[in-house]
Amino acid sequence: MRAAAVRLDDLTKPRGSLGRLEDLARVLAGITGDPLPRVAGKVVVVIAADHGVTAQGVSAYPASVTAQMVANFLAGGAAVNVLACLAGVRVVVVDVGVDAELAPHPELRARKVRRGTRDLASEPAMTAGETLAALEVGLDLAAELAHPTTLVALGEMGIGNTTAASALIALLAGVPAAEVTGRGTGIDDATLAHKRAVSDRALALHRGAAGDPLAALAAVGGLEIAALAGLTIGAAARRSPVIVDGLIAGAAAYAAVAIAPAARPYLIAGHRSVEVGHALTLARLGLEPLLVLRLRLGEGTGAVLAMQSVEAATAVLREMATFSGAAVDRSL
Amino acid sequence: MRAAAVRLDDLTKPRGSLGRLEDLARVLAGITGDPLPRVAGKVVVVIAADHGVTAQGVSAYPASVTAQMVANFLAGGAAVNVLACLAGVRVVVVDVGVDAELAPHPELRARKVRRGTRDLASEPAMTAGETLAALEVGLDLAAELAHPTTLVALGEMGIGNTTAASALIALLAGVPAAEVTGRGTGIDDATLAHKRAVSDRALALHRGAAGDPLAALAAVGGLEIAALAGLTIGAAARRSPVIVDGLIAGAAAYAAVAIAPAARPYLIAGHRSVEVGHALTLARLGLEPLLVLRLRLGEGTGAVLAMQSVEAATAVLREMATFSGAAVDRSL
Repeated sequence: MRAAAVRLDDLTKPRGSLGRLEDLARVLAGITGDPLPRVAGKVVVVIAADHGVTAQGVSAYPASVTAQMVANFLAGGAAVNVLACLAGVRVVVVDVGVDAELAPHPELRARKVRRGTRDLASEPAMTAGETLAALEVGLDLAAELAHPTTLVALGEMGIGNTTAASALIALLAGVPAAEVTGRGTGIDDATLAHKRAVSDRALALHRGAAGDPLAALAAVGGLEIAALAGLTIGAAARRSPVIVDGLIAGAAAYAAVAIAPAARPYLIAGHRSVEVGHALTLARLGLEPLLVLRLRLGEGTGAVLAMQSVEAATAVLREMATFSGAAVDRSL
Repeated sequence: MRAAAVRLDDLTKPRGSLGRLEDLARVLAGITGDPLPRVAGKVVVVIAADHGVTAQGVSAYPASVTAQMVANFLAGGAAVNVLACLAGVRVVVVDVGVDAELAPHPELRARKVRRGTRDLASEPAMTAGETLAALEVGLDLAAELAHPTTLVALGEMGIGNTTAASALIALLAGVPAAEVTGRGTGIDDATLAHKRAVSDRALALHRGAAGDPLAALAAVGGLEIAALAGLTIGAAARRSPVIVDGLIAGAAAYAAVAIAPAARPYLIAGHRSVEVGHALTLARLGLEPLLVLRLRLGEGTGAVLAMQSVEAATAVLREMATFSGAAVDRSL
C-alpha cells in the first residue's frame, strides 16, 4: 500500500486529484499484496435459493419467479447478464436452494442443499448442518474462482430474500426490524407494514441467536446468503477483492465478517441500494459505496457496474505516465 | 421516451428497480429520438488553452504545464488516456489557445485562436471576435464528431482555468465569487484567499457583462471554455448526448445553455467534482451527477468514467428479456 501511494503521487496529476480511484488503488495493493495490482478476471457469482417466509405474503412476486429467473440467467436475458456482458464479466449461476427441480444445464452449478428454507417467522430457517453445507458451497466456489487478480462480485436471486436479509442485519446489528426492513422489489404500504410485523415476530422468536453469527444465519438467513458468506470468506482468504452488491449481498458480507473478522479488508462496496437496511449495513462494515444509482434489483447488478471503477483504479496506477518520465513540471 | 418507458416496464425486473439506469434510458431515447437508442461511438474531446490570470499566482502549477500536458495527452500518458482506453473511448486533443508553439502531431487539432487569454483580473479575457472564433472551433468539432449514436464527453486542460470557470459561473449565476471559487488542483489556504480576492476584483470589473452570456464568456471565460460551449451547442443540435465533466466543463455547459437554452436536455452530468462551484452549477442546470468519486482533475476523466453507465442504460433497454419472452411471472 505504501509503494502504491508513492507511485500515485508521482503520476502526472495533482496529488489526490483522482479521489476514490486513488483510495481504491491503495486498497487493492493491500488486498493483493501487489504494489501494481492488475485485474485479469472478473466474475459475478449469482447464487439462487427460495425462502419459506414467502408463505407469509411478504413479497410482490410469487416464489415461482426464483426458478424462472435462474432460467433467465442461464439464457442471458436478465439485467446482470446484460451488464456483465458489457463489462466483460463472467456470470456463474448457482442453485443452492431453489424450491424446484431445475433441469440440468451446462452453465448451472447444481449445489442444492435443500428446496428452500423453512419459514423464519415460525421456526429456524435452517439447521446448523444446512447452514454449514451452504457456507461450504461458497467456500468451494471461492476455491475454484477466487484469485488475487480476479474481482469477485456477489450476486443473488431469491424471492423473499430481502425479508431474510433484513432480519439477519437486525439480529447482527442489534436494531429493531423496522429500522432495516424496506420495500424489496416494490411492495405497497400495507404489505410493508405486514413484512415489518413478520420480521418483528421472527426477531422476538430468534433473539437468543443474536450473539452468535452462525446461529443468526441459521435462524433468519437463507441458503444463498450463507453461500455468499462462505464465498466472501473463501475469497478473502485467497486475497481476492470481493465486490459487495446490495442489501442481500451486504447481509452476507456482514455475516461473513461477523464469523471471520479478518475478511473485512477484502470487501469493496459496489453501490448503495435504496433498501433502508443497506446504508446501516455499509456503515457497520465501515464501507463507502462506489455508486449510488437508486438500484434495488440485486442479482449483483450494482457490483458489476462498480467493477469498472475498480479496474480503472488499477489501470491508472499501472499505466499513467510519471512526472519525470513525461517531463511535466510538479506543483510550485 | 414513452416507447422506451413502456419497454422498460416489460423487462424481467421489478418496475423501476434499475433506478437511474432507467431514467437514463428514457432520456437517451428522447435525446436521440430512438426508442431503442444505441451507443456506436464514444469520444472525449480534450480542449487546451492558457489563461492570463495565472500572472496573478492563482494556481499550484506553472502555466508551462498546459503545453506539457498536451504532449502527455498525445503520448497517451495522462489519466484521461488511461481511463478512455479502458472504456473504449476515443481521445481527441485540441489546441485552441495554448501559450506555446506546439510541434505538429497527427493527433493534435491545431486550432489556436490566441496564445492564452488576457488577465481577466485587469481586462476582458477575450474580445468578442476571439470568443466567437473559439465557439466556432467547438461547433466545427461537433460537425465532425457528434451523432445521435455517439457519446461526446467534454474534457479540458488549462492551468488557471478553475479561476476563469468559477468567475464565469459567478457571473452567470449572480452569486459572489467566494461561493464558487475552490482549491482547483490543490492550492493552500493563503493562495485560496488570494484567488478569491482576484475573482472578486474581476467580478467587480466585469459586472456589466452579467446579463449577457456571450459578454460574460468574453470577460472572464477561456478559449477552451468557449470552444467547449460551442461543442455542446453543436452536439445538442445533432441530437448527440453530451457528457459533462467537472467544474470547467460544467461552466462551459452552463454558458452553452445560457446562450442556447434548447441545448439543456442533451446534457448528462457525468460526475460531481469536489470543486465548490460545481454543485451550484449542476443545480442551476437541473442536473444530477451519475458519479461522486471525489475527483478534481478535469481532462474529462469523470465524464469518461460515467460513459459506462450511459452505455449500460442503453444495453439494458435493448438487450434484456421481456416478461412474456422469458416466461417469468409478473408481480402479484
